[in-house]
Amino acid sequence: MADPRVSEHAKIVVTYSCRVKRNDFVLVNASRESHDLVVALASELGKVGARFLVLDNDHEIDRAFMLAADEETLSTTASQVVDLVRGADVLISVGSSFNSQEMADIPPRKLQISTRGKAPVGEAMQGKRWNLTLHPTSAMAQAAKMSYEAYCDFVYGAIIRDWPKFASEMKVLSEHLAKAKKVRVVGKDTDIALSVEGRRPKVSAGDHNMPSGEVFVSPVDTEVEGHVYFDLPVIYQGHEIRGARLTFRDGRVVESRAEKGDELLKAMLEVDEGARKLGELGIGMNRGIDRFTRNVLLDEKMGDTIHMAVGRAYPETGGTNKSGIHIDMIKNMKEDGNIYFDGELIYDKGRFVWE
Amino acid sequence: MADPRVSEHAKIVVTYSCRVKRNDFVLVNASRESHDLVVALASELGKVGARFLVLDNDHEIDRAFMLAADEETLSTTASQVVDLVRGADVLISVGSSFNSQEMADIPPRKLQISTRGKAPVGEAMQGKRWNLTLHPTSAMAQAAKMSYEAYCDFVYGAIIRDWPKFASEMKVLSEHLAKAKKVRVVGKDTDIALSVEGRRPKVSAGDHNMPSGEVFVSPVDTEVEGHVYFDLPVIYQGHEIRGARLTFRDGRVVESRAEKGDELLKAMLEVDEGARKLGELGIGMNRGIDRFTRNVLLDEKMGDTIHMAVGRAYPETGGTNKSGIHIDMIKNMKEDGNIYFDGELIYDKGRFVWE
Repeated sequence: MADPRVSEHAKIVVTYSCRVKRNDFVLVNASRESHDLVVALASELGKVGARFLVLDNDHEIDRAFMLAADEETLSTTASQVVDLVRGADVLISVGSSFNSQEMADIPPRKLQISTRGKAPVGEAMQGKRWNLTLHPTSAMAQAAKMSYEAYCDFVYGAIIRDWPKFASEMKVLSEHLAKAKKVRVVGKDTDIALSVEGRRPKVSAGDHNMPSGEVFVSPVDTEVEGHVYFDLPVIYQGHEIRGARLTFRDGRVVESRAEKGDELLKAMLEVDEGARKLGELGIGMNRGIDRFTRNVLLDEKMGDTIHMAVGRAYPETGGTNKSGIHIDMIKNMKEDGNIYFDGELIYDKGRFVWE
Repeated sequence: MADPRVSEHAKIVVTYSCRVKRNDFVLVNASRESHDLVVALASELGKVGARFLVLDNDHEIDRAFMLAADEETLSTTASQVVDLVRGADVLISVGSSFNSQEMADIPPRKLQISTRGKAPVGEAMQGKRWNLTLHPTSAMAQAAKMSYEAYCDFVYGAIIRDWPKFASEMKVLSEHLAKAKKVRVVGKDTDIALSVEGRRPKVSAGDHNMPSGEVFVSPVDTEVEGHVYFDLPVIYQGHEIRGARLTFRDGRVVESRAEKGDELLKAMLEVDEGARKLGELGIGMNRGIDRFTRNVLLDEKMGDTIHMAVGRAYPETGGTNKSGIHIDMIKNMKEDGNIYFDGELIYDKGRFVWE
């Protein structure tokens, strides 16, 4: 029998995050790593009276296809897949892995072509209820430098909590941010300013990500100026991007360099017109996620961090940028990170001035 | 690394069985048990330039949903699923199992309702290229009373062979059968006659089943008279049906009894109007499948056996019966089974008169 917390997790995703209701058609995107969670999701969906289909997103399968297929085959997504996503009411994706490095030997150019080809899938998801979550494995515990038992405790500690209460705590920041026009972030090798005028910042409290805990907004994508250094690594499509530095002029990345994964980062910035624009600024608010575990879903929510993503913006915050990519990059703010709203210091090394 | 025979198997299914070509959209229906085969299929599909989606058909997931869902939820299939199948060019289903008894505690009534609800999926498959195959597991070896290594040798011995040559050997029987009007099967507790007048018997040499090896035809479904005893058990939806006896009048089952699984068999015969009619007569021709392994895909192809299925007929043989079910039941012919075409003995205890 699975850990009883797996059932609690499934119930939170189905009823709280995705508000699944009778007759909804739900696509579950998962792989064998997440088997126990998918069984629990099936049970919860059955109770609600929804119907569903489980798509296998296993990385070994993806890798075998990408290595064998030519560029033409990788360059477009089958229309049947786009139609399937468009026809779904709810999408639940479980990010899980027996080996986070499974795609490590796919040439960046193939990832670039394939990512570009999948853009219609991202567009078809717009306006849907969707949730990205995770299911713990030994490989993920290894990447986090933790035992499996301790990692499970850590993950379920982050998932099983009072989400509405946490949401109201985060609302204080989102209300401040909603009144601001200009946000400036200063820190190690970083001084970047962006306009959020007229945008609608959102509290992420488990609807689209589980676990969650951030306030995020898509900036006015023509008004981003300055340079930023992301000290924490992220795994994007199985490749590590670490120590990325980006310089923006008039909202576009004009210079990029990563200490690791530079080739992939550069290839991704070339995916499409929107790839060089800033799609998101997020401020990590989840102090329960108290350590870096090399999993972006968790890492970007950590207290004392912010993240920015190049690529696709969030329309619900007023963002307009479109792209086949959305690469979150994370910056530690604990040592010397400051955030100013319209020139006023509101965040000093992880603490908000109103705390 | 997987057994190299897994790659050979995948290549046979993709290129020989399904004749997959560039730009085909392929649905692969499989579960974690078949992971190695699905990875190999992905590679073969990539080489050909096809696109695909893997659907997870895991029995634990199915079971959790069926136990939790009410009858209304189970009674229909989501239209999105039917559309997906309709939009596919090719369907590859991998029947594999970590536990053939996983559905054993689903009430037959729920299986009946769900089977009825899935009928549109079967209809959507009509006219497509499709293949049902299997991937060996320890559980399947256990059911076959074999070691895993010996079972793998047995399965790949049946799959990796010269299919076109075998097809031409089987053609002799199909040509005889094509000329016959009446087929009579006599054996233990069995004397049944059926009309095949005007029908087009087919040789199954790996296109729809892999492995294969049978000659089959859908009879004129109003002209089946007599009684038949199926001595070999089959697993249908995780439930064993053993020692089934059927009596036909004017093409309809008027009496049914099974030594085991009687409740499920009776529930399935009530699924719809076509469930009581004979959808298929098949004559097993594969003498390489030299033992009974409790897997219907293999068992029904054994030399010295015939099988009959109630439910859905094969239109390509001229069959017209429609049903949400197709339950194959197998009869051992080795001891005292005879087959007559238009009154003439053509098959005597597993041997054809022309051999």
